[in-house]
Amino acid sequence: MKLLRVGPAGAERPALLDKDGVVRDLSGLVADIDGALLADAAALASVAAAAADGSLPALDTRLRVGPPLTGIGKIVCIGLNYHDHATETGAQVPGEPVVFMKAPDTVVGPTDTVLVPRGSVKTDWEVELAVVIGRELRYAADEDEAMAAVAGYAVAHDVSEREYQIERGGQWDKGKNCETFNPLGPWLVTADEVPDPQSLGLRLWVNGTLRQDGSTRDQIFPVAEVVRYLSHFMTLYPGDVINTGTPAGVALGQPEPRPYLRPGDVVELTIDGLGRQRQVLASA
Amino acid sequence: MKLLRVGPAGAERPALLDKDGVVRDLSGLVADIDGALLADAAALASVAAAAADGSLPALDTRLRVGPPLTGIGKIVCIGLNYHDHATETGAQVPGEPVVFMKAPDTVVGPTDTVLVPRGSVKTDWEVELAVVIGRELRYAADEDEAMAAVAGYAVAHDVSEREYQIERGGQWDKGKNCETFNPLGPWLVTADEVPDPQSLGLRLWVNGTLRQDGSTRDQIFPVAEVVRYLSHFMTLYPGDVINTGTPAGVALGQPEPRPYLRPGDVVELTIDGLGRQRQVLASA
Repeated sequence: MKLLRVGPAGAERPALLDKDGVVRDLSGLVADIDGALLADAAALASVAAAAADGSLPALDTRLRVGPPLTGIGKIVCIGLNYHDHATETGAQVPGEPVVFMKAPDTVVGPTDTVLVPRGSVKTDWEVELAVVIGRELRYAADEDEAMAAVAGYAVAHDVSEREYQIERGGQWDKGKNCETFNPLGPWLVTADEVPDPQSLGLRLWVNGTLRQDGSTRDQIFPVAEVVRYLSHFMTLYPGDVINTGTPAGVALGQPEPRPYLRPGDVVELTIDGLGRQRQVLASA
Repeated sequence: MKLLRVGPAGAERPALLDKDGVVRDLSGLVADIDGALLADAAALASVAAAAADGSLPALDTRLRVGPPLTGIGKIVCIGLNYHDHATETGAQVPGEPVVFMKAPDTVVGPTDTVLVPRGSVKTDWEVELAVVIGRELRYAADEDEAMAAVAGYAVAHDVSEREYQIERGGQWDKGKNCETFNPLGPWLVTADEVPDPQSLGLRLWVNGTLRQDGSTRDQIFPVAEVVRYLSHFMTLYPGDVINTGTPAGVALGQPEPRPYLRPGDVVELTIDGLGRQRQVLASA
């Protein structure tokens, strides 16, 4: 299923994109799309049944699309998780996953405005496969147990301020948590519709120029290993999100002068089967 | 006021510790102690009025004390923020605040069990002054504006796994987000009762031995500067928590063999006027 949330920011309603591309209202069936829903197999089955029998009312397709998940507990991010991106940033290929965090309050919808922080001159883009957790996971014994905790996938834009991240005195989180820095969606695609998360193409354009064109095939630590690994350092809960890293092509990896984002720029990004984002940059 | 939450984990009720040390029930007056309450001056005034007129029912003092705040949006932590702690860890005194993050799901009550992660041999203690935000803050113009956004203070235990933090491939967050790694409370003491957050003694004992004995006077970046600074990198929201760093005396700063925490150890910690925590360590 493709789950989404539509309506004004902060007042989205749960919805489903059906096979014909019609947005269907789920608000009569579920309270919202959150960790509680993802952990509730019976509720998900009732959504699937209603989707199949055509009983869900259609919604206006012009409604704003919000983030496809609310009540996110934490966003765990994997750094340098593609061979080509590690190389372009001058970093060594990590021996185990590099982990940092974004606050859930950075999440906006896939077509919402992204704000360049005041004074920022190094705001950068990163298309990423987001993994959404549907089951509590601690100390997973193996990758099968880890994958059983994955509810679905989404497109994430891990917007990053490189000066804040790298040049301002320690720990990447400082450049990862500016407001609007995590567009998510348009859809949360349930795991059954993504049989192989390691064969997804990811692409990102800035002002129409293709900047990133990678594949999850090139992840150093694939999804199953990332989820398994993380569960040994923290408990994963339904509604948690993992941003699994970005392929090559970010501004930081370009020759000088690097084409960092400025107000007015347009970023578009897509992952195979997971939909498309488009953001216009503005000043904070 | 000293606000707290008492009752079983996940089912705490809001309460107030009155001047006579009696725990008073606030559940008839407010839904819970969270960012929405802290941002609501009228609701806080009604709590203060009820506290003053003695109309609040007393609660059983044997009830478990939970974390004094729920619905925490993010926990932002400042690293190496005391001169003596920076020195003991062999780090340089930072030129601007070092920022990392803990997930809100790491928060437990002040006397709840703290779990040593499986396989961990470097679980460490850190007593910290936690600042609780009560008003949205973006790009604060000065320290006065920053301090106006502070709702209150609490004791935080920033439990840290040093191998995961430092030796496992990048970014401190990996050693800061294990389950139960952020005991908070017992109280959220409103800012009016803490006229000078830079004159608070902090102490921590392990198995009865005094290990940390510092003062917020020695913070490199005082509370007002930390809050002002952070607001230029991220938006602070009501219910956000800032752990402002730890003074010297952690296990990492001791000569070998370092006395890292093991199951069965007892940690006690206190900050002047903010109450006392006591945790028994157990195995995850």
